[in-house]
Amino acid sequence: MSKFLTGKLKALKPYTPGEQPKEREYIKLNTNESPFPPSAKAVEYAECEARRLMLYSDPECKELAKTLSESLGVKPSEVILTNGSDEVLNFAFMAYCDESCPAVFANITYGFYKVFAAVNNVPFCEIPLKDDFTIDVDDYVNSHGTVFIANPNAPTGIALGIEKLEKIISSNRDRIVVIDEAYVDFGAESCIPLIRKYDNLLVTGTFSKSRSMAGARLGFGVASEKLIEDLTRIRYSTNPYNVNRMTAAAGVGALLDDAYFKDNCKKIIENREWTKGKLKGLGFEFTDSKANFVFAKHKKIGGKELYEKLKAKGVLIRHFEADKISDYNRITVGSIEEMKTLVDKIKEMLGE
Amino acid sequence: MSKFLTGKLKALKPYTPGEQPKEREYIKLNTNESPFPPSAKAVEYAECEARRLMLYSDPECKELAKTLSESLGVKPSEVILTNGSDEVLNFAFMAYCDESCPAVFANITYGFYKVFAAVNNVPFCEIPLKDDFTIDVDDYVNSHGTVFIANPNAPTGIALGIEKLEKIISSNRDRIVVIDEAYVDFGAESCIPLIRKYDNLLVTGTFSKSRSMAGARLGFGVASEKLIEDLTRIRYSTNPYNVNRMTAAAGVGALLDDAYFKDNCKKIIENREWTKGKLKGLGFEFTDSKANFVFAKHKKIGGKELYEKLKAKGVLIRHFEADKISDYNRITVGSIEEMKTLVDKIKEMLGE
Repeated sequence: MSKFLTGKLKALKPYTPGEQPKEREYIKLNTNESPFPPSAKAVEYAECEARRLMLYSDPECKELAKTLSESLGVKPSEVILTNGSDEVLNFAFMAYCDESCPAVFANITYGFYKVFAAVNNVPFCEIPLKDDFTIDVDDYVNSHGTVFIANPNAPTGIALGIEKLEKIISSNRDRIVVIDEAYVDFGAESCIPLIRKYDNLLVTGTFSKSRSMAGARLGFGVASEKLIEDLTRIRYSTNPYNVNRMTAAAGVGALLDDAYFKDNCKKIIENREWTKGKLKGLGFEFTDSKANFVFAKHKKIGGKELYEKLKAKGVLIRHFEADKISDYNRITVGSIEEMKTLVDKIKEMLGE
Repeated sequence: MSKFLTGKLKALKPYTPGEQPKEREYIKLNTNESPFPPSAKAVEYAECEARRLMLYSDPECKELAKTLSESLGVKPSEVILTNGSDEVLNFAFMAYCDESCPAVFANITYGFYKVFAAVNNVPFCEIPLKDDFTIDVDDYVNSHGTVFIANPNAPTGIALGIEKLEKIISSNRDRIVVIDEAYVDFGAESCIPLIRKYDNLLVTGTFSKSRSMAGARLGFGVASEKLIEDLTRIRYSTNPYNVNRMTAAAGVGALLDDAYFKDNCKKIIENREWTKGKLKGLGFEFTDSKANFVFAKHKKIGGKELYEKLKAKGVLIRHFEADKISDYNRITVGSIEEMKTLVDKIKEMLGE
């Protein structure tokens, strides 16, 4: 840190992305990437644009906004495209939180919310999950701040039903409720149909997981036109060309290849449930994850020990040091071959 | 705008990017894009990565940082890569400006500086250029804030020599000086060699213009390690995967193809000087631009009129409504064919 850094940022604790070691080949089940390549159409569209890089990208992302909005059943003016969904989440903290309106989110959720609050210098309030890691809906009814809920939640994978979310949204008509649906395509229900009914609802999504495009950085927000106007105003005040040409084109290609997307989601769900079955037989407990990961702890082996032993065997999973979840690991659902290897390595470890 | 937007952002006036009309084909000399395609190696590298989009990009951009730093003659730890240079500029406003340290820049310069100040809620101070559009160096000596200087300046194209910049930098050892070198490759001198001597210097650059990669969104900052640490801290607190895989790869490819880059810069300089010669003969006055654009006014025709008449003839140039420069237009230097068409259309207009 330099002596020049402004005071308000001196205490900043940045987000720690999952490790990406280079020293050897791992089976990577630690960053919730898809085991499947991007759609061939996404690749083809991106390649086409690589030859046109001398031209700026379209700040309005018109074609992508049109294709995405059709796919989601909304209007182009009800979506905003961003450089990953982290960007639209950060915009929401900028737009809708301040000293008089803190950010409100669970004590166990996407670790970046806390960082967004800090970098934007806004207060936040963490609400404890129940002991079974579920959200108590009443904690968010008539909230005193802007609510952020990851649904399914991370790293637990637990999803809230749409009726429960609507209870939260409808009780906060003077506050914004942000539903972060990064993992929604793997078995939870989207709140997007509610944006017409509630002008205080912002739904965020990403192409990173279910559309195999983590490396493209493409996220989006869906909300009433007025909220999209707010967020677009911030986009034009920070980085109007935030989505590059290749990524915008890849996004269009991916959306046109809907069958591939759906088939991949189906496979991930199957592999997840297969993995749960095997882990259960091996003495694991886990949450009812509706995401592309399993959140599991072993009855006898500590979370960190499991993480370290699997790493030594060439399988990376994600361990969090935080209280209450340090016995657990978040295991990304990969291909069936990867999950079989995971199970084999755990069996070896347990001496079975 | 929604009723939910926080007060401090309600007055925000976003940046207006140059128009990108779709209704007809124009010769686009309005957004300082390169007329040359990206390097074949950049395209090839980007295409390769399109197939690996399911994996996150490297938050450290290691390979690109190594290649770029070698090309610039610095260490990888002395560079930061960003989603266009707008992002690193925004980080600099976040990191180094606050109530007690306003942003200080010229009244005629890159229009986004004012917007960055507003979105970050920091005060700014605009210093008038001299009547000939040059900077008075003494205005920035012992500054009371963080100094931002575009060199060459936009939209005038006028460059300050490195001795003059050093005078500014060396007199502000307790303040940050940011030199925005978006256009430096077309004939100005870079301040990068000064970063070892001055720990208060941040130099920013972009692949948008001289490397024909505006649509890839790749910018960078070069500074002492401590400053790069500050900016990286902000990057990891807003968007750790800010540079996507395809763009990072294209950047490496572009840097490896140095001969193509140098040849394109040479051509742009030649075309610029050719254009100046022709415009002079047609009754134009212009600044001594060292950028990939000419900043010119006609002795008899108003700036807006010229812009509109050329637009009607299928040639887009950039007109700014701001006081003192409304008689001028910023004309991007394109291919020699494009510049010949420009000159022909102006001749038609003048009835010559």
